Amino acid sequence: MQVAVIGLGAMGMGAALSCLRAGLAVTGCDFSETARDSFAGAGGQVAASADAIAPGTQAVLLLVVNAAQTEAALFGPAGCTKRLAPGAVIIASATMGPDDARRLAARAEAAGFLYLDAPVSGGAAKAATGEMTVMASGSPAAFAKAKPVLDAVATKVWELGEAPGIGATVKVVHQLLAGVHIAVAAEAMSLGIRAGADPQKLYDVVTSAAGNSWMFENRMARVLEGDDAPRSAVDIFVKDLGLVAQMARGLDHPVPLASQAQQLFTAASAMGHGRADDGFVIRVWQALTGIALPGENQKREKPKG
Amino acid sequence: MQVAVIGLGAMGMGAALSCLRAGLAVTGCDFSETARDSFAGAGGQVAASADAIAPGTQAVLLLVVNAAQTEAALFGPAGCTKRLAPGAVIIASATMGPDDARRLAARAEAAGFLYLDAPVSGGAAKAATGEMTVMASGSPAAFAKAKPVLDAVATKVWELGEAPGIGATVKVVHQLLAGVHIAVAAEAMSLGIRAGADPQKLYDVVTSAAGNSWMFENRMARVLEGDDAPRSAVDIFVKDLGLVAQMARGLDHPVPLASQAQQLFTAASAMGHGRADDGFVIRVWQALTGIALPGENQKREKPKG
Repeated sequence: MQVAVIGLGAMGMGAALSCLRAGLAVTGCDFSETARDSFAGAGGQVAASADAIAPGTQAVLLLVVNAAQTEAALFGPAGCTKRLAPGAVIIASATMGPDDARRLAARAEAAGFLYLDAPVSGGAAKAATGEMTVMASGSPAAFAKAKPVLDAVATKVWELGEAPGIGATVKVVHQLLAGVHIAVAAEAMSLGIRAGADPQKLYDVVTSAAGNSWMFENRMARVLEGDDAPRSAVDIFVKDLGLVAQMARGLDHPVPLASQAQQLFTAASAMGHGRADDGFVIRVWQALTGIALPGENQKREKPKG
Repeated sequence: MQVAVIGLGAMGMGAALSCLRAGLAVTGCDFSETARDSFAGAGGQVAASADAIAPGTQAVLLLVVNAAQTEAALFGPAGCTKRLAPGAVIIASATMGPDDARRLAARAEAAGFLYLDAPVSGGAAKAATGEMTVMASGSPAAFAKAKPVLDAVATKVWELGEAPGIGATVKVVHQLLAGVHIAVAAEAMSLGIRAGADPQKLYDVVTSAAGNSWMFENRMARVLEGDDAPRSAVDIFVKDLGLVAQMARGLDHPVPLASQAQQLFTAASAMGHGRADDGFVIRVWQALTGIALPGENQKREKPKG
């Protein structure tokens, strides 16, 4: 089966390599020469532009940043749909609002293609091992056609319904939780440090108790290590919580906690930490209160306290 | 060993029964005749007032609502300290701010008693089975003296340091996380329902993914069942997030997410849901948007959407 993966970033590269390992014929597409060289080195075909993928491609997996990039890669002047086989399946995995997912699905179906609204989660580590989670909606025909690709990249595929937009909805709601959990993990850890609690003991108690979240456990471990290399960056949550706000506004539904969290990620980004790991939104509280983060005790003085 | 448990509520009754099962001589104290009758029926001694516990009591476990009740039960006109043996240990388990914990510890130590700053978590279910988690600070002598009681009521005792106030600090930070996690669980579930997602499928996806929290998993299960009988009530988080705000203000540390969550629990309480299970803070969004909660589809009409 001839497939294409468009976007060889943190998620796309792992997914493309997983497809290769599964024995699919894969063209990886990215503007970045470094990314293309890396994928070619692993034995994949490469393309610098979406309209340069192999003719007759039967499935295209899009792991780009948002709806606009997805639309451009499909239907733009250099879009890939002109290279797809009739009845090919488009697996759209960028995080986007449900309105965009429905619009792109309608456009794809009008052009004779199958469409899967298929956002993913799991991060770069799970993508690399072919163990992503896919939360998808689409027709049974679209799921069937996409199966070899989904089997290669994911260990869990949620089939959420036939209507495009349901996958996007569930993903946006998921990001609401993920974003607030990261921001409140930082708020709590910072308050504990300010109060004189031992950060490691605080972490140990919380992760064994009812106050735990997946994000607290994962992201505060990085803060304790002082490791701010981005697995997922602050700016991703500026964007994703923006999608939450946009979707909620369209539904006349207030989201006070998500809105507050977005302001905190925006503050971190404004400070120049947009590309730091998202748990380092804690630097907003550090800037305000002068707390020392673990491993940084010698680096700055407490202005007060 | 002669012990007393003051406060036979959701947590205290379970703890008192656990002490009985462990073979300790236990006086259970509560203003409520119903609670006393229940504990007497299980074979315990009872007291209607803290100054009526057995003379020479060597350990007193306080599971009352807050610092004021703790102080009254110890040092008030009908306080229990006059009945304690010299060198008895006071195990103060109500959630309170660290300043109150330090003040009560100093007063207890000045009167010749040992003091453990020992808030608990686990809920009524874990209290009933003697499986609470205790997050405690105090002197080695206080931990040693309290050991028979702690062994009876808890499976995990965190020894967080010698200074009173550390236990309270960790508990307050824990409640910050717990409260925000419950409120954002409700915000997300409500938004998902409003957007037309199936609530059960949304729950299944989130609880298997990185957006999960202990509270989302536990409390939204009750919302899906339509079961608002309080295991922990909305008003508990109005109070505990108030403690968070008080502690944070004293430390010059902003807590925007905790403050927003407290306003949401306050709104639920204002609507008359203060004694409902805390996950039913979702009724704030229901009131604003007219969503139908699971099991309530026939009970109210959507005003819009």
